[in-house]
Amino acid sequence: MKKVAIIMGSDSDFPALKGAFAVLKSYGVPVEAHVFSAHRTPEQASAFALNARENGFGVLIAAAGKAAHLAGALAAKTTLPVIGIPIKSSTLDGLDALLSTVQMPKGVPVATVAIDGADNAALLAVQMLAIEDKELAEKLLAAKRAMAEEVIAKDQRIQQEVAKL
Amino acid sequence: MKKVAIIMGSDSDFPALKGAFAVLKSYGVPVEAHVFSAHRTPEQASAFALNARENGFGVLIAAAGKAAHLAGALAAKTTLPVIGIPIKSSTLDGLDALLSTVQMPKGVPVATVAIDGADNAALLAVQMLAIEDKELAEKLLAAKRAMAEEVIAKDQRIQQEVAKL
Amino acid sequence: MKKVAIIMGSDSDFPALKGAFAVLKSYGVPVEAHVFSAHRTPEQASAFALNARENGFGVLIAAAGKAAHLAGALAAKTTLPVIGIPIKSSTLDGLDALLSTVQMPKGVPVATVAIDGADNAALLAVQMLAIEDKELAEKLLAAKRAMAEEVIAKDQRIQQEVAKL
Amino acid sequence: MKKVAIIMGSDSDFPALKGAFAVLKSYGVPVEAHVFSAHRTPEQASAFALNARENGFGVLIAAAGKAAHLAGALAAKTTLPVIGIPIKSSTLDGLDALLSTVQMPKGVPVATVAIDGADNAALLAVQMLAIEDKELAEKLLAAKRAMAEEVIAKDQRIQQEVAKL
Amino acid sequence: MKKVAIIMGSDSDFPALKGAFAVLKSYGVPVEAHVFSAHRTPEQASAFALNARENGFGVLIAAAGKAAHLAGALAAKTTLPVIGIPIKSSTLDGLDALLSTVQMPKGVPVATVAIDGADNAALLAVQMLAIEDKELAEKLLAAKRAMAEEVIAKDQRIQQEVAKL
Amino acid sequence: MKKVAIIMGSDSDFPALKGAFAVLKSYGVPVEAHVFSAHRTPEQASAFALNARENGFGVLIAAAGKAAHLAGALAAKTTLPVIGIPIKSSTLDGLDALLSTVQMPKGVPVATVAIDGADNAALLAVQMLAIEDKELAEKLLAAKRAMAEEVIAKDQRIQQEVAKL
Amino acid sequence: MKKVAIIMGSDSDFPALKGAFAVLKSYGVPVEAHVFSAHRTPEQASAFALNARENGFGVLIAAAGKAAHLAGALAAKTTLPVIGIPIKSSTLDGLDALLSTVQMPKGVPVATVAIDGADNAALLAVQMLAIEDKELAEKLLAAKRAMAEEVIAKDQRIQQEVAKL
Amino acid sequence: MKKVAIIMGSDSDFPALKGAFAVLKSYGVPVEAHVFSAHRTPEQASAFALNARENGFGVLIAAAGKAAHLAGALAAKTTLPVIGIPIKSSTLDGLDALLSTVQMPKGVPVATVAIDGADNAALLAVQMLAIEDKELAEKLLAAKRAMAEEVIAKDQRIQQEVAKL
Repeated sequence: MKKVAIIMGSDSDFPALKGAFAVLKSYGVPVEAHVFSAHRTPEQASAFALNARENGFGVLIAAAGKAAHLAGALAAKTTLPVIGIPIKSSTLDGLDALLSTVQMPKGVPVATVAIDGADNAALLAVQMLAIEDKELAEKLLAAKRAMAEEVIAKDQRIQQEVAKL
Repeated sequence: MKKVAIIMGSDSDFPALKGAFAVLKSYGVPVEAHVFSAHRTPEQASAFALNARENGFGVLIAAAGKAAHLAGALAAKTTLPVIGIPIKSSTLDGLDALLSTVQMPKGVPVATVAIDGADNAALLAVQMLAIEDKELAEKLLAAKRAMAEEVIAKDQRIQQEVAKL
Repeated sequence: MKKVAIIMGSDSDFPALKGAFAVLKSYGVPVEAHVFSAHRTPEQASAFALNARENGFGVLIAAAGKAAHLAGALAAKTTLPVIGIPIKSSTLDGLDALLSTVQMPKGVPVATVAIDGADNAALLAVQMLAIEDKELAEKLLAAKRAMAEEVIAKDQRIQQEVAKL
Repeated sequence: MKKVAIIMGSDSDFPALKGAFAVLKSYGVPVEAHVFSAHRTPEQASAFALNARENGFGVLIAAAGKAAHLAGALAAKTTLPVIGIPIKSSTLDGLDALLSTVQMPKGVPVATVAIDGADNAALLAVQMLAIEDKELAEKLLAAKRAMAEEVIAKDQRIQQEVAKL
Repeated sequence: MKKVAIIMGSDSDFPALKGAFAVLKSYGVPVEAHVFSAHRTPEQASAFALNARENGFGVLIAAAGKAAHLAGALAAKTTLPVIGIPIKSSTLDGLDALLSTVQMPKGVPVATVAIDGADNAALLAVQMLAIEDKELAEKLLAAKRAMAEEVIAKDQRIQQEVAKL
Repeated sequence: MKKVAIIMGSDSDFPALKGAFAVLKSYGVPVEAHVFSAHRTPEQASAFALNARENGFGVLIAAAGKAAHLAGALAAKTTLPVIGIPIKSSTLDGLDALLSTVQMPKGVPVATVAIDGADNAALLAVQMLAIEDKELAEKLLAAKRAMAEEVIAKDQRIQQEVAKL
Repeated sequence: MKKVAIIMGSDSDFPALKGAFAVLKSYGVPVEAHVFSAHRTPEQASAFALNARENGFGVLIAAAGKAAHLAGALAAKTTLPVIGIPIKSSTLDGLDALLSTVQMPKGVPVATVAIDGADNAALLAVQMLAIEDKELAEKLLAAKRAMAEEVIAKDQRIQQEVAKL
Repeated sequence: MKKVAIIMGSDSDFPALKGAFAVLKSYGVPVEAHVFSAHRTPEQASAFALNARENGFGVLIAAAGKAAHLAGALAAKTTLPVIGIPIKSSTLDGLDALLSTVQMPKGVPVATVAIDGADNAALLAVQMLAIEDKELAEKLLAAKRAMAEEVIAKDQRIQQEVAKL
């Protein structure tokens, strides 16, 4: 199976990304993690992206805050799909990272998920890998159903709780 | 090859999406178009998404403006990757559509591109299909190089133009 | 009397909605609670809305955060008035939920209240039920007067407090 | 049948409200129009709202731009539901009117629709009147179905148009 | 001397306004405090503003949060200058109150100060009263000079502190 | 009577300010116009503000766009009330000018009116001068009544126009 | 004298940059223009920045719109000061480009000017070159004085024009 | 070597600026600190800027919050480059300070860095001084390399940590 890379602009983003590693592992998708900075180690980021396809990667996930250029910088050097996670930092509530990630120019898309949406980034990567992978697609469907069951159970709990009010 | 569906919330979005059809055709990716509204024909949208994978689709693209729920509504019913294009409407400059599309809750991601970013949505779909498709991947690489050549040519033209100032 | 449904996108919204239940109970309006997710249990949300009128509901209240599609998804399937409460989440201060709830397209309105405005959503539901219900209208008027008395009492307290400064 | 009032803060808002009158007339709902300004004719606005219920009104619709206080000012004096339409003016793209209309304090809700959402305001008023009016409810359902048919027809047109591309 | 009224939309705003009372007292300007709500006690707010000039007031200060209509509602009923203080509440960081206060329509201005700018509202009121009051104008000038002295002292302290770094 | 100065940051703001001159003239308030730039002619701006009170001015009005420092720069040098008009420029719809004008620090208030709110700035200046001027206060009251009459006439026109629909 | 490079992300930005070339020429500063795209020709951008200092450049100016990464991408590869001009594009009024340009992470600053502020970018570059260049500094001072004279002349024209009103 | 001045609008900004002093000292750049307020001590700010060049300064750094005029006020009086640091205050998350600092009119640029970006302001000042200073340029390059090394080390740590998950 193709690998997924989770690349963070700073190791301080790691705690916010733990969910993404967990999601990928739960689907049995091999994952590699990196700290590359579009501004501090641009060569490393660049080289990684350039060789990602031949190194067995299928999808790249990039997480960065503020003027979040990382996802775009990777997308500039690969034809693999790049998923961007805008990270909320100490000012502007993540709006800066969201706009810096999503508003990419024609020719170089970044698949952007919600601010701090690490889990969804991983899930989106799995969905991409599952386009041609029936087994993975079935796991996704099972998870979707389990998620629905969970909400249905919560619905019943809340109905009862409110009935008692 | 898997098909791509381009689904618009209103036929008034069609002109803004022409580029997306052109991109997909240039890559030889089969495409189907639909007008489904998350709010006016939810059953149609729902049924389409539910059966999309078995009907041979690999990626769904959804374009909508204002409180843009279409991409999310499709994502709720399929495990295929869904790409969302926020469409700018007469107020708020597309910010409403962007936030309504990208800020999806855990478990149901939408791969969001720039406001009015139809071409990039199509390109992202091709990238997803190319994860396991070498030929498509090579076409993407060739296009990337052609795009670079075009910019390099523009660079030379501007250098000359400025030298004459 | 027609019932009111309070539907939340996630059980984590429940604490923010307690005031709404209290308001409805204080007016003797029968209320039912549900956890339905526009994205995780769309069929349940859909079926509920489709049958809400014949099941004795007069108004639906929907609370959701981020890309808040719940109120719109319900409104798509019923002709009952749907009230939307945008819930503030960890980023963007509720602006995403507000725009996702209020900016509905022509043909499918959502009656939107303030961010985290659960009490007002309930009160608005009572006002809707009171259009044709004299007794309820009188209770609303009495509450309006009591609210005014309370402010008048505060006015006097503050006048005295400031006089002592 | 209860009447609906459409109240505008300025007669310059009238063109933007034409659709609302048309919607109400198509449902056979009696409508009265007024120009009341929360800031220029507060007594008139106030007196109207105070007597609206006994004068046979069931719902008030208020449209205003900028620091849009009109809906709130009416809601302060009546227990009828008040629907607010934020009107886009020459600056800030309607955001000022939206926030001024929707962010009402506890105890005085305004049912806010989209910026410039006049048609939806009228439709929401009809939905409120239809809570206890079966005939009106059936008309709403018929319109909902007609709206879906229209979208389905557009879907087919677009499918064909794209097939020809 | 003309009196200044400080009117708050809710007694919960009182702590945020303490500085305003202090400023007015330091200038010997008589002050009266009130809790009037544009939405809960509109008659009281209205009556107060209507009679404010003949009751000896020279300036009205109004503080409110969210859809902050209070300053505008007072300005509708008086020809005295009305100063508006937008109060930050639990969502949107005060932007809603700022826009609701400042974006007044032609004919009914509100002199708006910074979000939570209670001290400056009081100082602005003193400046207005000082237009024709030489003694007050001199006190303002003395305070301006004292404020400058204070900053100059801080400048020297910081210069020394940095020299030691 | 005290004079009012209308100071613009650029002569390109003059057309947007014509209404302010008209308002002041209609009240018989003497007015002087200036082009001073906080950034291009700071000395002139500064000297004007410093001597404004002894030169017979009662109120200063300052209009500027973008990083609108003019009102604040004048307020720094006078104890007269300074009214700020944020001017909308080619980007950001006036939000930059609004925040730059209104968010003044403690000790130096600027009485801010709506974006492009020139007429209201002039009216606010008249209100300030009218605190101690009975004749002016009566003119303001007459204008307020005339404004109400005008709205009442429009109300009747619209009522009739709608009745004919 | 060190050269200045003006680098645009797209040749469509050229018209918006004409003023910058004019400013640099008026100061006799040698200038070179380039079209480099952070996303389409990252190697070219990168190589240019890497060698800029030894190629005789003193300052780099980068103009880009949307998710404007160009200035940051250059700054990542040079220790020369990089000035960023956020360019307004078809959506979001330049806010996306502003935040993408200015919110750079620690260690890699971009000197950001106003949205579409090409002239000021050039002037800032001249100021940087003038730190150690007396002649250039004197030209800057002369221009500053000429600019003041121009405003003073406008002040007199407006004074007269208003006197005639 | 030319000196750098770090000027803060209030001594309460000092803690947020400590990093800037550290950066300058690490490069051996002489630094002077001041508290000048554009609104409270405009003469001091003005006089300082006017004489800064002849007093041996090469770059001025100004930090201020809210309606942050300080950088612009200094830039009005000097031809040295002025770097502006927008400081986040209690409301609006620094957006007010950012727009007030960066949106400068033609002729008077401010080199703006990120909200609370004190370290980068200092680094940018060093970059400006290093245009003509080889030794400083080499130190900058060494620091850039050290920064890259640090990120590379973090990359390896994270790779290992994830491998153990």
